[in-house]
Amino acid sequence: MTAVSDEIRVVLDGAWGDLRQRVRHELKPEQILGEPGQSVAEQRARVTRQLLALADAGYGRIGFPAQYGGELDYGASCVAFEMQAYGDLSLLVKLGVQFGLFGGAVTRLGTERHHSAYLADIMSGKLLGSFGMTEVGHGSNVQRLETTATYDPATSEIVIHTPTASAVKTYIGNAAQDAQMAVVFAQLITNEGGHGVHALLVPVRDEAGNALPGVTIGDNGVKAGLPGVDNGTFAFDQVRVPKANLLNAFGDIDDSGTYVSDIDNENRRFFTMLGTLVRGRVCVGGGSGSSAKKALAIAIRYGDHRRQFEAPGDEQEVVVLDYLAHQRKLLPRLAKSYALSLAQNIVTERLEELHGAGAAGGEKDQEAQRELETRVAGLKAVTTWHALETIQVCREACGGAGYMAENQLGQMRADVDVFTTFEGDNTVLLQLVAKGLLTEYKELWGDLDPAAMVGMVSKQIAEGAVERTTGRARLQKMLDLAKGRDDDSALDDRGWQLSMFEQRADHTLETVAKRLRKATKDNAFQLFNGAQDHVLLAARTHIDRIVMEAFAEAVDAMEDGPAKALMDRVCSLYALASIEEDKAWFLEHGRLTTTRSRAVTAQVNQLCADLRPHVLTLVDALGIPDGLITAPIAASPGA
Amino acid sequence: MTAVSDEIRVVLDGAWGDLRQRVRHELKPEQILGEPGQSVAEQRARVTRQLLALADAGYGRIGFPAQYGGELDYGASCVAFEMQAYGDLSLLVKLGVQFGLFGGAVTRLGTERHHSAYLADIMSGKLLGSFGMTEVGHGSNVQRLETTATYDPATSEIVIHTPTASAVKTYIGNAAQDAQMAVVFAQLITNEGGHGVHALLVPVRDEAGNALPGVTIGDNGVKAGLPGVDNGTFAFDQVRVPKANLLNAFGDIDDSGTYVSDIDNENRRFFTMLGTLVRGRVCVGGGSGSSAKKALAIAIRYGDHRRQFEAPGDEQEVVVLDYLAHQRKLLPRLAKSYALSLAQNIVTERLEELHGAGAAGGEKDQEAQRELETRVAGLKAVTTWHALETIQVCREACGGAGYMAENQLGQMRADVDVFTTFEGDNTVLLQLVAKGLLTEYKELWGDLDPAAMVGMVSKQIAEGAVERTTGRARLQKMLDLAKGRDDDSALDDRGWQLSMFEQRADHTLETVAKRLRKATKDNAFQLFNGAQDHVLLAARTHIDRIVMEAFAEAVDAMEDGPAKALMDRVCSLYALASIEEDKAWFLEHGRLTTTRSRAVTAQVNQLCADLRPHVLTLVDALGIPDGLITAPIAASPGA
Repeated sequence: MTAVSDEIRVVLDGAWGDLRQRVRHELKPEQILGEPGQSVAEQRARVTRQLLALADAGYGRIGFPAQYGGELDYGASCVAFEMQAYGDLSLLVKLGVQFGLFGGAVTRLGTERHHSAYLADIMSGKLLGSFGMTEVGHGSNVQRLETTATYDPATSEIVIHTPTASAVKTYIGNAAQDAQMAVVFAQLITNEGGHGVHALLVPVRDEAGNALPGVTIGDNGVKAGLPGVDNGTFAFDQVRVPKANLLNAFGDIDDSGTYVSDIDNENRRFFTMLGTLVRGRVCVGGGSGSSAKKALAIAIRYGDHRRQFEAPGDEQEVVVLDYLAHQRKLLPRLAKSYALSLAQNIVTERLEELHGAGAAGGEKDQEAQRELETRVAGLKAVTTWHALETIQVCREACGGAGYMAENQLGQMRADVDVFTTFEGDNTVLLQLVAKGLLTEYKELWGDLDPAAMVGMVSKQIAEGAVERTTGRARLQKMLDLAKGRDDDSALDDRGWQLSMFEQRADHTLETVAKRLRKATKDNAFQLFNGAQDHVLLAARTHIDRIVMEAFAEAVDAMEDGPAKALMDRVCSLYALASIEEDKAWFLEHGRLTTTRSRAVTAQVNQLCADLRPHVLTLVDALGIPDGLITAPIAASPGA
Repeated sequence: MTAVSDEIRVVLDGAWGDLRQRVRHELKPEQILGEPGQSVAEQRARVTRQLLALADAGYGRIGFPAQYGGELDYGASCVAFEMQAYGDLSLLVKLGVQFGLFGGAVTRLGTERHHSAYLADIMSGKLLGSFGMTEVGHGSNVQRLETTATYDPATSEIVIHTPTASAVKTYIGNAAQDAQMAVVFAQLITNEGGHGVHALLVPVRDEAGNALPGVTIGDNGVKAGLPGVDNGTFAFDQVRVPKANLLNAFGDIDDSGTYVSDIDNENRRFFTMLGTLVRGRVCVGGGSGSSAKKALAIAIRYGDHRRQFEAPGDEQEVVVLDYLAHQRKLLPRLAKSYALSLAQNIVTERLEELHGAGAAGGEKDQEAQRELETRVAGLKAVTTWHALETIQVCREACGGAGYMAENQLGQMRADVDVFTTFEGDNTVLLQLVAKGLLTEYKELWGDLDPAAMVGMVSKQIAEGAVERTTGRARLQKMLDLAKGRDDDSALDDRGWQLSMFEQRADHTLETVAKRLRKATKDNAFQLFNGAQDHVLLAARTHIDRIVMEAFAEAVDAMEDGPAKALMDRVCSLYALASIEEDKAWFLEHGRLTTTRSRAVTAQVNQLCADLRPHVLTLVDALGIPDGLITAPIAASPGA
């Protein structure tokens, strides 16, 4: 660690830097690393053992309410997850299922009776549980789940039932081997009729580990990755649980058997429930971001000493990272990892503000909650795809060595894969982002023309995100400086870069809103479907903009000096590589001249060359504990 | 199979259609499918067992010389490989190592004494062998291998030795468990000095399977994929083999201990030797192409019945392949699979012409050989990346189900991964393509200006490929029709499409040649390195052009009717999706107006919609044996 890398690390660490430092020093590699080549049974046993050991060490308590023995705050649980993601990802997902999904659902969807009864045992690992949402027939469209939970007034019980083969719960983590209890999402039905999807606590195994009567447990068996996670299936045949097992924070059945809820609208109630579970997506985004960083650390360290092919007239071969093509593979992705990391910190802070112990609630928070959900959904999609692609590119950049299990990339790549479709399919999530943006839009509809509306929406969203900081004013200042001189300003002008991101996001949203405004009852699906690529673009560019703003803000807030100067160039590389990827859009929309468009590519190449001497500093600044990078190729050749 | 899909299948099958049909009907699924979840030891045992069974069934004989018991022709071995690639890829690679790399090297680099001694046992699987090229320190730069083969005139033996840790042979298939013998590539040294890299037969295990004295065999252990392939390491400590073990087709040591070769230039000799092994790359390209097709068949069949989310006003949910975003993921990739398949057929035919039993040899063939190598290198890179990306997209398009081993995509994805860096790292191969093009260039240098030279080179290359057919004349006719009316011609005008591919390839090559022409002894590396992204673009666009021409030619040669009409649209989708991907380039270089550029995207969307009703026909036409698609999600829901 140099002074520069340390200073940058502190910036990347963000608000929970102390916790990150604690985890770096406290966790031993053997506590969270996996072992390649074990059988599925061995992997599962190892992961369960590690999970219980981490629970013993107190890691299960992070983020739970203090009054039940929890520790630290809600945001801290996301940060701990990010740090644990530098270890084995099967273990990470198992931790996420137990403490995040299962424990989180009991906390957020349940009430005091559930908290006092179960949280202590969940944190300690004494009670292992599943999160039973997905069904064979329904992954993304959770509102159409088919499992039923029917209230029986005669016994005050609720009957859980799987009516069809497509209603079987599947891909459920912890199910095949460990869970004693599951949070089951099902259509709640009383005498009055259906009330939409609700969650209930359903015991699934007895103390000896056998399935309880009426519960059929299956094993999803071998998967493309995450071998240590015991994904499985649950089917219920008229299984009865006490009414008290309904997680009743948002809807309940009173003593007279009548359904009661503070939220009358079934649709709104459903999305409010789901909204309280937004942490899962925050964690998946953060965890996959960590994986990308670890892969980059391995590939960059290897590329910094691996030699292949001699330059004309040279006897010694060239270090592969001195090749432009190699830099092109790794450095823009490193810059993007920085950018996403800083954007991730902001959503984690925002999550703590809105969902942490001190959250105020109320109308204003509802608006902020929607903004958070939109941002989290998009950032999860963008980060998981970034991670998948980055790990793959790193694997290829390491050649055959990258394919060997000992060099860690293969398992990471296989594990991260599923992050792109679980906790929300990425394509569906981006549509959710667009829907969020367009909803804001609709509410401002009135007589405004689309351009004016986009201005308002985009301002509102930006302000929502940075209102607690002086960041927005800073960003606005940079933007204002850039206005009106697009083609004259230097490519490394931050204001110009920000303006390009803003224009891309605003224009795509504005035009998609115009297209969709023509929807009538009869053509709605056709119209929406025909614009789907445009909708996805609007969502992605919106997220890109948010990410760029997070990076610009963080650099601007640094003290002048070599660390800031270095970060400034990394930020420019992120910005220009993103603009370069969308060159066609900028050209088509007259936002870049052809001359300037070519200059962008030249400048990306130049920045790669400029950053080349600093790559190890930039990798060190990621703060990945050295003990977790066991890949022999990442070791310095002198070591 | 409908008449249409059958007609298209025959076109895709190409020259070895009969062999493909034979394999389709003859091979039982259990002969070539793998089993998910087995341990590495079980996978290896299963793969060895399957390999020996296939050898018993005669599959090892395909492509070997008839006089030693071989069967069919050289090109046929590539086609058989493509068909076997619909099964387990560990088995495929194991077959490739035994019969292709090991057997191929003995055939092509050895002479009669090696053929008569070993080929029968190689074909029958009695003699299992390795191909010992890659070393720890040298993967791509094979000329710098460090293993030595020193001739000892006292005993007429050659001493094989591993002088350093970086000289250890590694990632060698068949090494860890099965090989009794290895073709070892080493620096051949006689009293006169070094003669560059040569190949030798080195026994490595005794009959009981123990390493022979002086040979240290290691196990690469668990990998990111290909669990059934026993990759391992060889280190040699002064291991002596008879002089006769030198594979002496291109260089020998005579009885007086003097090195003799028909090719004086060491560099040329080395590349001539490697050139005879070009089949390996043909196979890897073809095999990965098959994998992409199988993944598309699974994802498209699932997407054709999986439903998720209801359209407004509809009770039933929408079939996911009716969504534009889903079509966008799968259909352009299906079109590209068609295109690559047809281009692959051409290189296979070309390989047979130049390397088959009837090959003439001579000057003309040397030029053709260089053209073949260039084309094969590029097609291998483009196809393996296409396969990797396609399988991944298919996995995601199938959601959580795509991640389950039973649905076959995960293992394929993990296995195909390494195809991007073995048999030549893709990035290095694309540079080889560019080098090939620029060499032609240089030879035509003289006083011509670069544009005129590119015209000549590109004409020559195109003619080289299609001279045996009337295809070139056809292509030229389509091109001529399109000239001079770029912006007026319809987007589905084949001539215009071809012209866009031609312009992109020619212009990138022309400009990169101009840049590199400025090279002096002092700036050569800097200049080349600074242009590396440009060099890679020139290579890739050249291959894209060749692929497009293969598709256009095949469609043009079909009889008029519904099959041709359908193929015509698939070809347009391939063309326009490729143009769309490089929109920025076409805009920057004034080859597309912004209006037309947007129209390209709209037309890609339109073609996806047009082809949507025909997807199952197009999948059937791939001719993948149904028994090899065991993924439950690919079964029709009524089945």
